[in-house]
Amino acid sequence: MEKQPLYEGKAKKIYATDNADELLVYYKDDATAFNGIKRGTILNKGVLNNKISAFFFELLGKHGIKHHYIRTISDREMLVKTLKILPVEVVVRNIAAGSLAKRIGWEEGKKLPTTVLEFYYKNDELGDPLINDYHIKALGLATEDQVKTMAETALKINDILGAYLKEKNLELIDFKLEFGLHKGELLLGDEISPDTCRFWDSRTGEKLDKDRFRRDLGNVEEAYKEVLYRLTGEVFAD
Amino acid sequence: MEKQPLYEGKAKKIYATDNADELLVYYKDDATAFNGIKRGTILNKGVLNNKISAFFFELLGKHGIKHHYIRTISDREMLVKTLKILPVEVVVRNIAAGSLAKRIGWEEGKKLPTTVLEFYYKNDELGDPLINDYHIKALGLATEDQVKTMAETALKINDILGAYLKEKNLELIDFKLEFGLHKGELLLGDEISPDTCRFWDSRTGEKLDKDRFRRDLGNVEEAYKEVLYRLTGEVFAD
Ligand SMILES: Nc1ncnc2c1ncn2[C@@H]1O[C@H](COP(=O)(O)OP(=O)(O)O)[C@@H](O)[C@H]1O
Ligand SMILES: Nc1ncnc2c1ncn2[C@@H]1O[C@H](COP(=O)(O)OP(=O)(O)O)[C@@H](O)[C@H]1O
Ligand SMILES: [Mg+2]
Ligand SMILES: [Mg+2]
Repeated sequence: MEKQPLYEGKAKKIYATDNADELLVYYKDDATAFNGIKRGTILNKGVLNNKISAFFFELLGKHGIKHHYIRTISDREMLVKTLKILPVEVVVRNIAAGSLAKRIGWEEGKKLPTTVLEFYYKNDELGDPLINDYHIKALGLATEDQVKTMAETALKINDILGAYLKEKNLELIDFKLEFGLHKGELLLGDEISPDTCRFWDSRTGEKLDKDRFRRDLGNVEEAYKEVLYRLTGEVFAD
Repeated sequence: MEKQPLYEGKAKKIYATDNADELLVYYKDDATAFNGIKRGTILNKGVLNNKISAFFFELLGKHGIKHHYIRTISDREMLVKTLKILPVEVVVRNIAAGSLAKRIGWEEGKKLPTTVLEFYYKNDELGDPLINDYHIKALGLATEDQVKTMAETALKINDILGAYLKEKNLELIDFKLEFGLHKGELLLGDEISPDTCRFWDSRTGEKLDKDRFRRDLGNVEEAYKEVLYRLTGEVFAD
């Protein structure tokens, strides 16, 4: 009999473990976009994102970022610290793309003169709307201290990842983070992968992320493999 | 021959005067909603909003708020200081209504546990999107100092107007402000009226603002007249 997940999201399943402080995250191949309107599968995405996320958490850990990742359990599973996820998505942007390009009327690919940080209300029913510090306070989504820590940590992560990726000829366009509380401490949670970041090849501008799925650009699995290869040197074989 | 306005907006026309530091604002009866999709006329709105705005600017002036209003010229015209309007709309909210109620999924009329301040990009083509401090900086819409001053001033205005209106049995639900530069100084500009605020009768909850037009509630002109009467005691006769 297969174990029931505690929670099944759009990209991952979360399982309890014997230890209440630890959870098992299982990465699926399911892909969704536009708030669940577009649905599909990206072959091996779960395996690739499990590896890529593990790599990024370890990299960030080396730079002093506190995160939930403990260790990799299998191809599609990682053990993480149990978090009470704050319903706030933190987005950092270096280049205008996606919803920001639309919002401010800028062409996709235009460099932002200053790094842009955004908060979104993690609420599928509402379509994850953009919110600001006042909304977070009024809704009681996070304390002012937590908002400050999330903003500072997100900008620090931008510096760490941006510098690392540049060496691999990957441009970090933007990315989304989730944070949560573990025994009162705010930790980086969820995943960091081509599902939650935009990566463009520095030389060709080729998109190596979920936009290939969102916009039907083809070679979706190949893009995720290429990211893993650039990051770790691992040649992924199906 | 009628003089050509420098600029004609959705609710007002702006005329030059002999003095480059002063402009004439002419209040029209035109009413628009939903970013110009709904159009109509509210009889005498121009006259009423000219009076109501003049009243509010004078009230705010007495409380130390720096604004563009100089004096009333005619039924529909006021003389103001020339501003370079910053393309940022500043919204203050006390009760969830309109787009905020939609954004955060709250019922209209629910009291916000904390005052909410929002910035919108004043850009009709983009539908005046919600933006945050980072967007303002990246777009170069205002300096950090100006953002701070606008926020502080808007919250102070909320206190002043809220207290005054409460005495008149009007609940200040939310309102929109525009600021601009006059000789390097940041002044409150535009208008303060039932077009740009939500006022609800404190006892009955009746809406006395542009929502009567937006939502086809009837008695639109009467609501504007009632606001003028409550504020100033003036019984407006057509
Ligand atoms: N360490 C953790 N503890 C508890 N929940 C977590 C942790 N890391 C991520 N989650 C949550 O797991 C859920 C499943 O992930 P995902 O499939 O991406 O969900 P979603 O459909 O909400 O994007 C998400 O709600 C995410 O916030
Ligand atoms: N003191 C001022 N100096 C210059 N422009 C002003 C001043 N006060 C308001 N304005 C601008 O006058 C324009 C006309 O007003 P309105 O009809 O409300 O325009 P809109 O259609 O942009 O809402 C607006 O762009 C507003 O920002
Ligand atoms: Mg997710
Ligand atoms: Mg206007």
